[in-house]
Amino acid sequence: MTQPSDKALVPFVSVDNMMRLVHHVGIEQILREIADYIEEDFKRWELFDKTPRVASHSDVGVIELMPTSDGEAYGFKYVNGHPKNTKEGLQTVTAFGLLADVYTGYPVLLSEMTLLTALRTAATSAMVAKHLAPKGSKTMAMIGNGAQSEFQTLAMKAIIGLENVRLYDIDPAATEKCARNLSKMGVNVTKCATPEEAIQGAQILTTCTADKKSATILSDNMVGAGVHINAIGGDCPGKTELAAGILERADVFVEFPEQTRIEGEIQQMADDFPVTEMWEVILGQKPGRRDDKQITLFDGVGFATEDFSALRYIRDRVTGSDFCEELDMLADPDDPRDLFGMVQRSNA
Amino acid sequence: MTQPSDKALVPFVSVDNMMRLVHHVGIEQILREIADYIEEDFKRWELFDKTPRVASHSDVGVIELMPTSDGEAYGFKYVNGHPKNTKEGLQTVTAFGLLADVYTGYPVLLSEMTLLTALRTAATSAMVAKHLAPKGSKTMAMIGNGAQSEFQTLAMKAIIGLENVRLYDIDPAATEKCARNLSKMGVNVTKCATPEEAIQGAQILTTCTADKKSATILSDNMVGAGVHINAIGGDCPGKTELAAGILERADVFVEFPEQTRIEGEIQQMADDFPVTEMWEVILGQKPGRRDDKQITLFDGVGFATEDFSALRYIRDRVTGSDFCEELDMLADPDDPRDLFGMVQRSNA
Repeated sequence: MTQPSDKALVPFVSVDNMMRLVHHVGIEQILREIADYIEEDFKRWELFDKTPRVASHSDVGVIELMPTSDGEAYGFKYVNGHPKNTKEGLQTVTAFGLLADVYTGYPVLLSEMTLLTALRTAATSAMVAKHLAPKGSKTMAMIGNGAQSEFQTLAMKAIIGLENVRLYDIDPAATEKCARNLSKMGVNVTKCATPEEAIQGAQILTTCTADKKSATILSDNMVGAGVHINAIGGDCPGKTELAAGILERADVFVEFPEQTRIEGEIQQMADDFPVTEMWEVILGQKPGRRDDKQITLFDGVGFATEDFSALRYIRDRVTGSDFCEELDMLADPDDPRDLFGMVQRSNA
Repeated sequence: MTQPSDKALVPFVSVDNMMRLVHHVGIEQILREIADYIEEDFKRWELFDKTPRVASHSDVGVIELMPTSDGEAYGFKYVNGHPKNTKEGLQTVTAFGLLADVYTGYPVLLSEMTLLTALRTAATSAMVAKHLAPKGSKTMAMIGNGAQSEFQTLAMKAIIGLENVRLYDIDPAATEKCARNLSKMGVNVTKCATPEEAIQGAQILTTCTADKKSATILSDNMVGAGVHINAIGGDCPGKTELAAGILERADVFVEFPEQTRIEGEIQQMADDFPVTEMWEVILGQKPGRRDDKQITLFDGVGFATEDFSALRYIRDRVTGSDFCEELDMLADPDDPRDLFGMVQRSNA
């Protein structure tokens, strides 16, 4: 057997190693650190090569590739979205991602991203809430208690000091699961029987449900003045969670308008519906929250730069550590023109 | 440590296992088998979800994602193209690829594709030559003796019975390398000092050079009547190998016109320059070679379906064998909504 050269080996972070890393760093600390990387990259927004995701749709779901580059590193994520999977005992969303060196084109990191996507989605929501939610927000309504709900709650605790979460799901078993997982995590949990009950006293309303169809999770009369809405479940064409009336009363903030107009809550609105891009708020070029009565709405769909930031964080964290293993994924003969000779010699 | 479930594990074919598989099956036999899969998929051309590759260009190279789907399986390849890499001791092209199940969105195979791309490119060239080259072609001029050259030669031997190859490269060391690798492979090798010498008596002219710029590897007066040109080196914008006069005299055959007009030899020609799609020739809907005087030209740039076919072949060949290992790449908790609980329990 021919030993592969160093350049042939790509560091790989397995699911098991990602879980070990989360415990090693601590769930709240890793959410804070990932949020910092995401915020840094929002500040460098204009230098990224941005493109809407490349989607392959079928009757039952979608498979997407989300590439981006900052000119030095290139990253992409593979992610599927299959809402019917849950009923079959499978994840709705699975993902993995890759970072490569733009100068050589060689991959430098392969990582699981099912967990990392949950972490970066929660970190993004909380980083955005830091800029938009009422100062001193202590209570969040969490509507939809699926795979993302605990991560969303803990990111809000870690990054903006959330103390109370009020849970509601159409399936009480999901709420039980979320409440159980959040016990002993340092946040007060209230299980609610209706969405109306869940939003009582909440400064932040997070919607994260999984049905691949337009539904009205929040109706117009449920949303009072001054709240921040973190709408992350409406993330593909034909899937929304909010009544259009809410969008009309709110100031809407987005990641990448070209993608959000296709996939987000604002797909219900006219093509020129006014939105503010988060990178401009983060850089201080546009106002975020202006007053106590304003409804701010983050229409989050997830953007490629957030995955790029998360992969960049993981690369910086795991390179040279035992949180990754080396994968023999690249053929790299000593003489680059002698690929065939490498194959021949491997049989010796 | 939580043991991952079966569904969390993705079969992975490393470079080492790909080389073992090549030796196990035999280089000529594996080229024939891959060519059969590629030809099968050209026959199913119309059902594929086809899109030009998604490219991220930099000053020194390109990184591309090439997705496609037949409705049951989804595949994509990551591939870079960095001509300057050779001087730095690196591969110009490295690649890996993935197959997934459209119904669940779950990946089912991850594979190295640097070697597999060389195999599928050679298999495609020879499968096309079977349809277009003069019957009984025995001699090929191989202009450009880099990493693809031995694979091209052996695919032509395996699939159309090539007996003689005449090698030329601007760098005599590349020709020496290719001749050495092809000795004892059952093909007569002639090392040539000029392109003019290389094409003497050849029925097939293969051009496969690596400079990322337009060059004239074959000039108009070098190409006589009746030959088949297999032009595979012109494969990105600004990179061509043939004089425009040759294209005007030849009948040009392509994989996917939308991509070839951007990347192939025909980027030199008007947007409506007439071409024939190979799938129509393979299905017998359009003529291929009509007479002994005709110049046929395959303007090959490599298309996503060919990678899909190659991945499909590898999946069928290696599933359940020791030519792959299991990669813990997908988080798959027993309760799909309990991703967070899986993380918590992994710390127990």
